[in-house]
Amino acid sequence: MFDPEMAKKAAENLGRIRERKPLVHNITNYVVMNYTANALLACGASPVMAHAAEEVEEMVSLAGALVLNIGTLSHPWIEAMLKAGKRANALHVPVILDPVGAGATSLRTASAKRLIAEVSIQVIRGNASEILSLAGEKSASRTKGVDSLHTVDQATEAAVALARELKTTLAITGAVDLITDGEQVCRVWNGHEMMSRVTGTGCTATAMIGAYLAVTPHPLEAATQGLAYFGLAGEKAAIKALSPGSYQIALLDALYEMKEDELKSGAKIKV
Amino acid sequence: MFDPEMAKKAAENLGRIRERKPLVHNITNYVVMNYTANALLACGASPVMAHAAEEVEEMVSLAGALVLNIGTLSHPWIEAMLKAGKRANALHVPVILDPVGAGATSLRTASAKRLIAEVSIQVIRGNASEILSLAGEKSASRTKGVDSLHTVDQATEAAVALARELKTTLAITGAVDLITDGEQVCRVWNGHEMMSRVTGTGCTATAMIGAYLAVTPHPLEAATQGLAYFGLAGEKAAIKALSPGSYQIALLDALYEMKEDELKSGAKIKV
Amino acid sequence: MFDPEMAKKAAENLGRIRERKPLVHNITNYVVMNYTANALLACGASPVMAHAAEEVEEMVSLAGALVLNIGTLSHPWIEAMLKAGKRANALHVPVILDPVGAGATSLRTASAKRLIAEVSIQVIRGNASEILSLAGEKSASRTKGVDSLHTVDQATEAAVALARELKTTLAITGAVDLITDGEQVCRVWNGHEMMSRVTGTGCTATAMIGAYLAVTPHPLEAATQGLAYFGLAGEKAAIKALSPGSYQIALLDALYEMKEDELKSGAKIKV
Repeated sequence: MFDPEMAKKAAENLGRIRERKPLVHNITNYVVMNYTANALLACGASPVMAHAAEEVEEMVSLAGALVLNIGTLSHPWIEAMLKAGKRANALHVPVILDPVGAGATSLRTASAKRLIAEVSIQVIRGNASEILSLAGEKSASRTKGVDSLHTVDQATEAAVALARELKTTLAITGAVDLITDGEQVCRVWNGHEMMSRVTGTGCTATAMIGAYLAVTPHPLEAATQGLAYFGLAGEKAAIKALSPGSYQIALLDALYEMKEDELKSGAKIKV
Repeated sequence: MFDPEMAKKAAENLGRIRERKPLVHNITNYVVMNYTANALLACGASPVMAHAAEEVEEMVSLAGALVLNIGTLSHPWIEAMLKAGKRANALHVPVILDPVGAGATSLRTASAKRLIAEVSIQVIRGNASEILSLAGEKSASRTKGVDSLHTVDQATEAAVALARELKTTLAITGAVDLITDGEQVCRVWNGHEMMSRVTGTGCTATAMIGAYLAVTPHPLEAATQGLAYFGLAGEKAAIKALSPGSYQIALLDALYEMKEDELKSGAKIKV
Repeated sequence: MFDPEMAKKAAENLGRIRERKPLVHNITNYVVMNYTANALLACGASPVMAHAAEEVEEMVSLAGALVLNIGTLSHPWIEAMLKAGKRANALHVPVILDPVGAGATSLRTASAKRLIAEVSIQVIRGNASEILSLAGEKSASRTKGVDSLHTVDQATEAAVALARELKTTLAITGAVDLITDGEQVCRVWNGHEMMSRVTGTGCTATAMIGAYLAVTPHPLEAATQGLAYFGLAGEKAAIKALSPGSYQIALLDALYEMKEDELKSGAKIKV
């Protein structure tokens, strides 16, 4: 029923992350910095956070992937994201964008769109309302904060069209994740409801995709595999804990403890 | 001995938070952002952190309450707090202030006073020395950092007078919490000594009051009930853990696991 | 085999921290603020984070030690560190520097060197590549992010010479920690491999040295004892947890639970 080939690749690429320990450069929000860094360490990558305009070009030149996240945005940070993104493009370092809260305020929507316009971005991950807001569809653009969710089904058609328009891979996370590069559509059934009870799990999913992008040149595959890995860790964590404090910790443990064989057999991916 | 009516309302309002999932907009300090967001999610609310002057007015217009916290202050953040606070006032979104470290430095004391002067604030929560510093009492204004505590009894009379002077509700937390709007005085006996061993529990108490303010129009009741809920969660967490790492996690779990009936029977409030 | 005298002092000074609860003023990075504050509370100290240029001089005047950490650097923060450091010098408040990522970018290397040039710093703690980068050895100055480790042995000779040159105490952490003031060399065998799986443990080690500096006037001893205490807590945590989420929590618990007698008998220090 699920695609064994993509699951196998997800496991192999997890092995590559653990072997190569790629540096993942994050320009991300204050809320999730610690958790994201710990999640990247748990999966085997090497996180670094650096946001000063004076150093982001130098830092990204050392990195295997660049994660941009607009969750606690201000102008100096946008400028740093643009600088880092352009340098990443020049160096062929893959870039992933998390447009946190796009649609909720003009600053966020405009900043996400500016990043997309000025930087070549390999993957954009968000919830449905965030992603849809990038299309400038006013009707879809008012979200209730950053944790609102539309159904993934509502978003499929718009997502494929939008991925083509933006020439990128979109990863729309929800009860079922939808990933599309405008040609292929992948779906990931992994995940657990508890993940929405912990702040920054979306941002962490984005970082996991960043780690995958650092070891595979296929954005659609990196996004799909990263989400399957993170979602499966979310399922395993729920076996240990069903309250959010303990769950947050169990999720980090699960990322670390995940065996490649477990991922190979547990990834629920449809291409 | 304790007030059953207020305890009942505390439980009912917890139910309302969980049902309505109000957006709570936080402009808060770097240290506690993650923990506060997780605590708000655990209680049932929807947290958002946004501090850019360009977006705070738009963000607060979506919110059920605005939490201002000066724990890691700098000028751009003060300006954003003023902007957000004024917009909240215009929209009748309740505002709660946590004057972290007021009394410890001139910047903090002056910033707290400026916020109080320019924004109508429904609740101010702090420890005794922080709150007393707002009165401009030089003698009381030097605190040993942000975790110092005077006894609540020392502060009662000054608090009632100060609440009248500032036309707000003051929530002074300590071994016993004191809440007054200048007319009524409430006391909350819930809580546990371990809460002072974890950073940001005061800030989290403030955020809990924010969640309550989003579902009830009575500042005195929101502050009293929010502190009883948080304090009772602190007691329950201490049954599970008495070391601060584990306690921090158990406290988030307890906020989430709290049954409305437990709060109704466990809230130790005197009006 | 190990030095019983230094172990005894480590235990006694831990008792002093718990008794005096010194205020430790941190100007540190966003990633570790929460964890560092909780670790300082767990060891018995009183943490405060404050970075605004307008208040750092006033805040440091209340403190027993000043911790400077360049992990998420930008210009306003460097200015604040310089201001706070100079004021600390004037007041004889000990200063400890964590040059996170020095060697990885010019901004970090230059900022660390500027701090060392303009502020009298009692202890600098970093990994080998960070510390070696302070010598301006281009060959040693490119690090793979902030978590790379050279062997401590490679660094010993350079460290002694560098400590003399910089007129400070260097604490180089790794599998075995090396501490030198340019005259004496101490080594600490405490620690556990899991510590490198949690973000900010280096920064936390620095903060622990800060707490020790607040109760003892000997930088070499403070650094050695602080690292032994933190390393032993790391060993104890590994008995409880070997996955990074749980380990992070167990480490905070271990700092709090450490008995002075345990430290006296468990510290593995060679002078």
